[in-house]
Amino acid sequence: MNRPLSGAPTGGGIVIGRACVLDTGFIDVPRYYITEGELAGEHARLDEGRAAVERELQGVADQLPHDAPAEARALLDVQMMLLNDAALIEAARDRVVNERINVEWAISETAEALVDQFRAIDDPYLKERGRDVEQVAGRLLNALSGSGSPALAGRVTGEPLIFVAQDLQPADMLQIRGAIGFVFEQGGIHSHSAILARSLRVPAVIGVAEAVAAIHDGDMLILDGDAGEVFVNPAQVLLDDYRERRRLAAEEERLLARLADVDCVTQDGCAVTLLANIERPDEAQEALRMGAAGIGLFRSEFLFLNRSRLPDEEEQYQAYRQVLDTMQGRPVTIRTIDVGADKILPAQALVPGATSALGRRAIRYSLAEPEMFLVQLRALLRASVHGQLQILLPMLSQPKEVDEALLLLNQARQELIARGEPVAERIPVGGMIEVPAAALSAGIFARKLDFLAIGTNDLVQYTLAIDRTDHRIAHMYDELHPAVLRLIALTIRAARKADKPVCVCGEMAGEYRVAPLLLGMGLRSFSMLPSRLLRVKNEVLKVDTRQLTPLVRRMLVQDDLGSIRRGLACLGIGEAPGLPAGTPARDPSHPSTPTGAHQA
Amino acid sequence: MNRPLSGAPTGGGIVIGRACVLDTGFIDVPRYYITEGELAGEHARLDEGRAAVERELQGVADQLPHDAPAEARALLDVQMMLLNDAALIEAARDRVVNERINVEWAISETAEALVDQFRAIDDPYLKERGRDVEQVAGRLLNALSGSGSPALAGRVTGEPLIFVAQDLQPADMLQIRGAIGFVFEQGGIHSHSAILARSLRVPAVIGVAEAVAAIHDGDMLILDGDAGEVFVNPAQVLLDDYRERRRLAAEEERLLARLADVDCVTQDGCAVTLLANIERPDEAQEALRMGAAGIGLFRSEFLFLNRSRLPDEEEQYQAYRQVLDTMQGRPVTIRTIDVGADKILPAQALVPGATSALGRRAIRYSLAEPEMFLVQLRALLRASVHGQLQILLPMLSQPKEVDEALLLLNQARQELIARGEPVAERIPVGGMIEVPAAALSAGIFARKLDFLAIGTNDLVQYTLAIDRTDHRIAHMYDELHPAVLRLIALTIRAARKADKPVCVCGEMAGEYRVAPLLLGMGLRSFSMLPSRLLRVKNEVLKVDTRQLTPLVRRMLVQDDLGSIRRGLACLGIGEAPGLPAGTPARDPSHPSTPTGAHQA
Repeated sequence: MNRPLSGAPTGGGIVIGRACVLDTGFIDVPRYYITEGELAGEHARLDEGRAAVERELQGVADQLPHDAPAEARALLDVQMMLLNDAALIEAARDRVVNERINVEWAISETAEALVDQFRAIDDPYLKERGRDVEQVAGRLLNALSGSGSPALAGRVTGEPLIFVAQDLQPADMLQIRGAIGFVFEQGGIHSHSAILARSLRVPAVIGVAEAVAAIHDGDMLILDGDAGEVFVNPAQVLLDDYRERRRLAAEEERLLARLADVDCVTQDGCAVTLLANIERPDEAQEALRMGAAGIGLFRSEFLFLNRSRLPDEEEQYQAYRQVLDTMQGRPVTIRTIDVGADKILPAQALVPGATSALGRRAIRYSLAEPEMFLVQLRALLRASVHGQLQILLPMLSQPKEVDEALLLLNQARQELIARGEPVAERIPVGGMIEVPAAALSAGIFARKLDFLAIGTNDLVQYTLAIDRTDHRIAHMYDELHPAVLRLIALTIRAARKADKPVCVCGEMAGEYRVAPLLLGMGLRSFSMLPSRLLRVKNEVLKVDTRQLTPLVRRMLVQDDLGSIRRGLACLGIGEAPGLPAGTPARDPSHPSTPTGAHQA
Repeated sequence: MNRPLSGAPTGGGIVIGRACVLDTGFIDVPRYYITEGELAGEHARLDEGRAAVERELQGVADQLPHDAPAEARALLDVQMMLLNDAALIEAARDRVVNERINVEWAISETAEALVDQFRAIDDPYLKERGRDVEQVAGRLLNALSGSGSPALAGRVTGEPLIFVAQDLQPADMLQIRGAIGFVFEQGGIHSHSAILARSLRVPAVIGVAEAVAAIHDGDMLILDGDAGEVFVNPAQVLLDDYRERRRLAAEEERLLARLADVDCVTQDGCAVTLLANIERPDEAQEALRMGAAGIGLFRSEFLFLNRSRLPDEEEQYQAYRQVLDTMQGRPVTIRTIDVGADKILPAQALVPGATSALGRRAIRYSLAEPEMFLVQLRALLRASVHGQLQILLPMLSQPKEVDEALLLLNQARQELIARGEPVAERIPVGGMIEVPAAALSAGIFARKLDFLAIGTNDLVQYTLAIDRTDHRIAHMYDELHPAVLRLIALTIRAARKADKPVCVCGEMAGEYRVAPLLLGMGLRSFSMLPSRLLRVKNEVLKVDTRQLTPLVRRMLVQDDLGSIRRGLACLGIGEAPGLPAGTPARDPSHPSTPTGAHQA
């Protein structure tokens, strides 16, 4: 069969190998009523079950190699934490007492109620927390039934196989040593399995409907982690084609690696700054290795997520300092927290609707909780003496938010000076332009701030009123919609007019095909995943802005789709969803990173 | 005490009178386990309780006067329907059987779970359904305890009183004949109590924290339904002031009434079209009485909400025809349904997140469910021969949505022709501009469509990324944000350039203080609540667009807040939240409708 199964791509290129199908299906939960006399026994079983799962997870954690990705340990920690979360364990215990039901039944009911609550929250991260609950509950039920993790029983042979399952828990994924690829029915690009696959550098395709039914043990698979496609028992000609693509990709990788130390300058001599987006301090190393000129966006949320208490000033300071130290004097832009209350404290995560995309998030939340915000600002200011720090305020929509944030920053500075702590004299403060209102009044923000950073992911979401985590409309998510292009161009123009630096740091910045368009709009600074840096640099080296700029300018003033589409086609960007289809832009000599809706 | 309590205003002007405080508080739910032998008895109690509430609601419905507002009956119907909803009654019955608990306990648990689910949904209408569930459950519990509606016991004397309560059910509000005002602790401008107060033409202030504690029986109250303020035992000077305001308002009302038949033309001779927004066919009468030149927005949702089945073609046709007949040849613009799946079918209402503001709503839902959409299109086309019908497509964001809708409209037309039904030759089709993407590419939409309608409510929400039903950030909702003004101006300009009519039909259109701004942008067509028409007309008659237009144009090209604020102040609009505060625009000679965030 030569029509591929498709799902969400997690990147990582092409692998070819045999399938190993794991059964992670339904657990049959025993349900019965208990008498008062049996209560103590059920309590003991619950405690034993919990202890068993704790040992199991600890065992996996202990066996992690030293070079295991940081996410691996973090994901195990999340599950350990849940094992001690009253919302799961103590609530189940209460059910046993109040409803006189057995432990398994109580766990299953409690978990289901929790999962429903998390699912109701309009936020991909918190939806994913629902999955954590499910997984921990599943482990508890397995432990209580006396079996281990049945999925892996006898299957972890170390052979180079592509593992196919409904889903796999991080702990199970980490136990599989030989995996060269993963295919999962459940999850999306934000799911923990996707994150872990990426950090293990194993290509995966996620959210493939019916994968377990369609694939059998031993089937030959081509898995394209960039396109999100899986071919089952492909014809020889296809195998040959994909082997060739793999070879070309490896070749390209090798060629690109040489560019790390090359200056990033266009044909006509325009210097372009390529920066890295990172989420954890240790990722700064890779940014450096890829030749990043600095960190354009360090998302500070990692410090706050999945925590039972807020990180204190010292802990934050250490994390920020680590990035500044690693980057050896290169600029490091740290974004203040970009979440609602509910992502921070697990106990509050159950307030429904609290994290709506149109709600009190990011700078709105920080300004509403000045004590918490001041802790972060003091940590940032203390770190400022270790390098070239820049502070970035997320989700601005009203100019007065800048004024209020600057007042608090000054207060934090005074507090540190009073304490006798050294603080850098001058720390540039910038703003994220990701709400349409901010883009439309970018001039006002540009004058108030030291620099702007365009967050294309949210900007597209709000401009089109499309939640791209909603699978029913995700196909409408279109970062090349003329409206989006106009807002980006407007923001770049406003920043240049105010003589302030401006950078694009959404996913768009890492899509090498889109780079000429952004360069033509006048953008000279891009921030992206470190893994995207060299390919974008390769593109920058080829272009001549003297030709590009008038082309893009002409395109943007057009007010009809045909002209815009022709303009994009001239730039080699033809796959814009939402525009009448041009010729598909997939090109076998460029095996990865097509521009499209499902890019991670 | 001369500082007022404040809440959400529902309009209706000022009333002055004595308070009657109703206790609608907590019901003490008896909770006990039952034996198998008691099961049958509990079933019988549940049935009796349900029958008793049904009789009670039917009694209220039967006593409604003939001229009772249509909402009154509709709200009673919703509660009757819930009484027969398996999600409440049968689920409670299941709990009795499975958990061996008494009926009251089972009802209370079931209702709580349902309410939680509704609350989790990011949609004010569905949140309100949660309140219906609570209210019906409350009535059931009262009936089971043998008491009637305790809130009203002995309190419904027909005296002209201002009733103060945590909240009142529609059925209870309808039983109070003498109410001249309502103050409720719970709810907001979308709550059923607010809707009912408006349609009873009784001023109300909703969402007043601690009202029941702060107000005592017999207290003298000034209730300002336009400002959302309640003064408790005010000083004589304040009483005199508000009695004077009441007199002035009545005087103004009388003067405005004379304008109904006056031509709506500016000082310099520009004809301006004032249209009405309606939600139900019978409201067309009031539109006519207020001198509306037509219906600018008939929201067709009333046909679909709170229904257990979809309305068929005939029922829709009759409703649309009624409006066209009433309007006697004046243009009638009917918007196709503007909801997600979940507002339509109660059974689906429990899919969390399904009605997210960034989700599959409005035209997205209609195009995804073409069979349902075709029923509505056929009903519209059949109605078209009875007047001057225009069809309006909501929430456009991509030009191809227009193409797809027009194809379906043509299909509906062919189906009717094949049936031998008459259809108007030419029916203008327009689009709602309410997503930033649509405003930013308004030229493309203007060329594809026959007219544009700007929906400012959603446009503000998406542009600022602010959900105004979220009380924690509602103060940031600002329809005078420079970004919003630019998008509106851009859309008006694009429509005029394409020589297509354009109308504003969000709440902004009904705010008379904003009218000069919109006129200065070139707008010549406004659609608003019928009750706002005469005051806006009064404003239009006074202005001279030869002075306004250059003033507004200069203001809009400014890129700093100071200039924009000065421009707004020149137009007499000074209260824009989000802009540095100017002088407050409240003015006692203009007692109602200040421009602000909490306008209904």
